Amino acid sequence: MKPGNDNGGHTADTPTPSARPPGRPRSREADEAILAAALDLLIERGAGWVSIEQVARRAGVTRATVYRRFPTLTDLLVRAVEWEYRDVEPGSLDRPDIDGMITEWAGHLSRPRARRLIRRLHGTVDDLPELLRAYEDAHGSHRGRAVRAALERARAAGQLPPGSDPEILQQMLSGAALQHLAAHPDTTGAEEVKAYFVAVLRQAGYRSGRP
Amino acid sequence: MKPGNDNGGHTADTPTPSARPPGRPRSREADEAILAAALDLLIERGAGWVSIEQVARRAGVTRATVYRRFPTLTDLLVRAVEWEYRDVEPGSLDRPDIDGMITEWAGHLSRPRARRLIRRLHGTVDDLPELLRAYEDAHGSHRGRAVRAALERARAAGQLPPGSDPEILQQMLSGAALQHLAAHPDTTGAEEVKAYFVAVLRQAGYRSGRP
Repeated sequence: MKPGNDNGGHTADTPTPSARPPGRPRSREADEAILAAALDLLIERGAGWVSIEQVARRAGVTRATVYRRFPTLTDLLVRAVEWEYRDVEPGSLDRPDIDGMITEWAGHLSRPRARRLIRRLHGTVDDLPELLRAYEDAHGSHRGRAVRAALERARAAGQLPPGSDPEILQQMLSGAALQHLAAHPDTTGAEEVKAYFVAVLRQAGYRSGRP
Repeated sequence: MKPGNDNGGHTADTPTPSARPPGRPRSREADEAILAAALDLLIERGAGWVSIEQVARRAGVTRATVYRRFPTLTDLLVRAVEWEYRDVEPGSLDRPDIDGMITEWAGHLSRPRARRLIRRLHGTVDDLPELLRAYEDAHGSHRGRAVRAALERARAAGQLPPGSDPEILQQMLSGAALQHLAAHPDTTGAEEVKAYFVAVLRQAGYRSGRP
């Protein structure tokens, strides 16, 4: 955890100006320490157990510093979820074929932290639906689009039956992921997760074009 | 909510002796009031927000009465989950074909209370895995067996491709249920839920034998 800068002043290791987005550069470090603390607490304990007090303590800032940047706990958690996926460009999720698409997704779902975060977001949907929506907007919807595109290409290439519906298959794969998150240990390796998705897709008539 | 009987004595509306299982009949009413209160709180607020104090207040008994019967909160919640499914005989989940099986499951998944309970059990899996296990033991495993049996019969009847794997298809349907619980409103009617499952199964080559 990076300790934050509570008084909003300059820190010792100031980033080079060119790397900085415009606006309040001095607050960057405190912002990131707060977001990282909120995200870690969300993953460890669940949204219901995160408080501004705990976030401030873990980030090494005062509560006032947190409130100044994030007026409510919900606002903070939503921003923390968005922040988690800040470096994943939507286009980077595209893969030329189903094999590549499943490999990428299986890699993601073999990371215990990612598994737990997705479970937390779903687990809090009755109390704080904003979090799952934030995930969908920041990441899930882009992933869904990339999966549908890969499924469409596979159908065109004859790897899926002509009557396949990429929209329904994509929802089916999302469901398969949730089922895996609920029923398989977080130590499951990427190859094993991939085999699970391949088995599901084979039920839908998927035949890999690879030898 | 039925008010409980705090002192363990007889209540006014004593059930007929023949309806009673052996053992501590006088405690039955208090037990059920406590279990019902725990279950309602679990569904409304989630396991993390249920306390013995709240359960006692809602059941109209003292905390000592709760502790006497359920030594820990986990024990109480596990028993409450088992209790929710006490009247569902495993055999009653059997259906002759896929259409009947989906109709039954869609009926269950169109009940907002059932939807929310299943979400709560999944939502608490990182903190209190005992609850999802209790559901699996008391109900989910029987449902899974009934679904696999219906899928096997459908395959034998030619309604599913010969290469279908009932085990994987059943996991796929469980996943589809989780996806529906996460992405569709709790006001979705049984017919609409059924159409969703039919659409998923059609991707797996399901062709109904019905006209």
